[in-house]
Amino acid sequence: MSKIINVGIIGLGIVGTGTAKILIEQAKTITEKINLKVVIKTIVDLDITTDRKINLKGINFTKNVDDIILDDSIDIVVELIGGINLAKKFIKDSIKKGKHIVTANKALLASFGKELFELAEKNNVIINFEASVGGGIPIIKTLKEGLVSNSILSMYGIINGTANYILTNMSKYNKPFDEVLKEAQDKGFAEADPTFDIEGNDTAHKLAVISTLAYGIPVVSDEIHCEGITQITTLDMKYAHILNYEIKLLAIAKSHNKTLDLRVHPTLIPKDSILAQTSFENNAVYLEGDNVGPVMLYGKGAGMMPTASAVVSDIIDISKKITSKVLNLNKYYYSKKAIKIIPMFALKTKYYLRLTTKDKPYVLSKISKILGDNGISIDSLIQTETKEDGSAVIIIMTHPAIEKAIMNAVKSIKKLSFVKKDFLTLRVEE
Amino acid sequence: MSKIINVGIIGLGIVGTGTAKILIEQAKTITEKINLKVVIKTIVDLDITTDRKINLKGINFTKNVDDIILDDSIDIVVELIGGINLAKKFIKDSIKKGKHIVTANKALLASFGKELFELAEKNNVIINFEASVGGGIPIIKTLKEGLVSNSILSMYGIINGTANYILTNMSKYNKPFDEVLKEAQDKGFAEADPTFDIEGNDTAHKLAVISTLAYGIPVVSDEIHCEGITQITTLDMKYAHILNYEIKLLAIAKSHNKTLDLRVHPTLIPKDSILAQTSFENNAVYLEGDNVGPVMLYGKGAGMMPTASAVVSDIIDISKKITSKVLNLNKYYYSKKAIKIIPMFALKTKYYLRLTTKDKPYVLSKISKILGDNGISIDSLIQTETKEDGSAVIIIMTHPAIEKAIMNAVKSIKKLSFVKKDFLTLRVEE
Repeated sequence: MSKIINVGIIGLGIVGTGTAKILIEQAKTITEKINLKVVIKTIVDLDITTDRKINLKGINFTKNVDDIILDDSIDIVVELIGGINLAKKFIKDSIKKGKHIVTANKALLASFGKELFELAEKNNVIINFEASVGGGIPIIKTLKEGLVSNSILSMYGIINGTANYILTNMSKYNKPFDEVLKEAQDKGFAEADPTFDIEGNDTAHKLAVISTLAYGIPVVSDEIHCEGITQITTLDMKYAHILNYEIKLLAIAKSHNKTLDLRVHPTLIPKDSILAQTSFENNAVYLEGDNVGPVMLYGKGAGMMPTASAVVSDIIDISKKITSKVLNLNKYYYSKKAIKIIPMFALKTKYYLRLTTKDKPYVLSKISKILGDNGISIDSLIQTETKEDGSAVIIIMTHPAIEKAIMNAVKSIKKLSFVKKDFLTLRVEE
Repeated sequence: MSKIINVGIIGLGIVGTGTAKILIEQAKTITEKINLKVVIKTIVDLDITTDRKINLKGINFTKNVDDIILDDSIDIVVELIGGINLAKKFIKDSIKKGKHIVTANKALLASFGKELFELAEKNNVIINFEASVGGGIPIIKTLKEGLVSNSILSMYGIINGTANYILTNMSKYNKPFDEVLKEAQDKGFAEADPTFDIEGNDTAHKLAVISTLAYGIPVVSDEIHCEGITQITTLDMKYAHILNYEIKLLAIAKSHNKTLDLRVHPTLIPKDSILAQTSFENNAVYLEGDNVGPVMLYGKGAGMMPTASAVVSDIIDISKKITSKVLNLNKYYYSKKAIKIIPMFALKTKYYLRLTTKDKPYVLSKISKILGDNGISIDSLIQTETKEDGSAVIIIMTHPAIEKAIMNAVKSIKKLSFVKKDFLTLRVEE
């Protein structure tokens, strides 16, 4: 007879329901594959009345989280309530009771990962978190195991489906940001309050999780420079295309020996690169390992069943390890190297500048003088057709320059009387 | 002090040298990451004189394979000599001595996988084979673990770098097959005898390995219908593009309840699909899981360091399991379902037909009558400009049809006096 692993799920929302659905409906296949019975013993949620369209027969469905935390027969606690404070408390209490954890909570890990992993190590339990980044795409397992023999030189992630859905629609159908956001909200691809997605915070949380794993240092999302996509216009899309680029909200991590360059911002990337083909709500992480070279993982970054797929894989992973007491193998790895995060002002990259001028005489000479004075050289320049009011848009692509120099130049250019306020600075990756 | 795992490498060719290079030069980082020392004790090769530009100090470098197989202190045997007979013997002898195996040998696994896995299970040892498909891309681990909570509905793989390099060059630069093959051989992207790569055999071996894993049935590569790319011309590339397709050599696996559709052939796939962006020597596997939806893994499918990266990940995976005696967890999974492979004649898909006719009158009516008589309806048809000799090329895209009907129709069309011999039939996937 197969050994039984008891699971407690805290939070029966969308992902919780999907997780329960797989564990209940595919129980037979899972047992056949891993020779273990993984059983949901208890589910906790504040709402125990709404019909989730799954058969919860035999499962203790309760409002009281202690029914999981204080139940010594429960091996694995699956935290799917999200948010910080309560989730953190429930996870810590469960760890102290010797329970293993599966969570999708990137916000929690991005702020308190180190504390939780240290507590887990002390209590000899595992925290698995595949669903926290990229939905069902196995990016966490790939970083931890599949590419274990590599140093990760760089990572570029499109890891927020909402932002990518909006940018893709702007790019493909020439629709303005506000219109696409509204559509995305109507279709359920964006929240009523979309701030976390469109301002890049969610992407920064996920970048903190994967860069902690890839580089073995505890990255907190607050340390990551973060810009959103609300300033992008269809005009930027148009000129990006003319210059053979696509605009994507990227999570970027680059390792330079003992320093690490971490940032989240809308970025121009080559239009014909495979990463640029990641459209609509899809996610992708493109990375380079010192041995393996470039690898890309692509798939649905969110949604009930893709995310539940990752949660269940995590549960199965722990279940297999419980039966053989391999817990120490999952120790969180912190590098002994003293790796520092590079401050944003020291970044060196190419830039895209878009500005509107009121009239034309001397404009170009004055702007290019300011750039030159700051040591910035121009790679290409497009001045668009003059509008009825005499204004024109200028697009400048620079050669690689230092962020600090660009910010100084931008400050000076903005002071010019003939430059309008809608100045946009984007960074470029080749 | 860290526990020591002793490794023996059989075959110090390209991948063997890369593997040794990582284990020797990155020993410190690996120990730091996994808290184990992985040490190469012995390397066996017939050539022990050529300088591999790595420091083999302290390693027993010998011509005698018994120095590995009969050495009780060696935990893991890495087989990298390729070929069938000797590799099989060395692996079986090692298994019987209780040694774990890492191999990149798809040809061996595609014919004798079941025998080897059963022997390994009996002797309670692991066989890892990540490097056998897709070089350093962690497709095997993803199928075994990352997507364990999914049934795989379909897989589409571009898993032969040589064939993809040739097709990409034909597609992008309008160069004929022979010219590109010659270039690929000069650059080292194709072997002097390229048969296995361009005729699809290597792709079929790899498909056997991944479909065995994904569907839990022992697939032997001989059971897989296999067509190569030698009939593809730049004209086909041109018309594929006009019809918005790209031509790729695909490994295809599709599950329909209790049947499985397995095949390797050049295939028209939508030009704007992300799989079609896999260019030159790169590999990709695009699959659909019932829960996770579509997932794609992309990267370098071959080469010294990418393949060595996978071999070392496999060694580390086993090393971690040895120290905790979790060997039974890696049991090879065979489904209890009786899954049958669908015979090729029963396949239903869309087809691309390309034929040359000597003159025009009645041609179209006769051809379309034959197609109609076989129950095949035409989706689109292009008749190209007539050449000086009065001949013209006709491209026909069909609606979904049964392979058997297509083959019957093709046979009849070929008998028509005005149809030249260079008839090409390709299959289409949407």
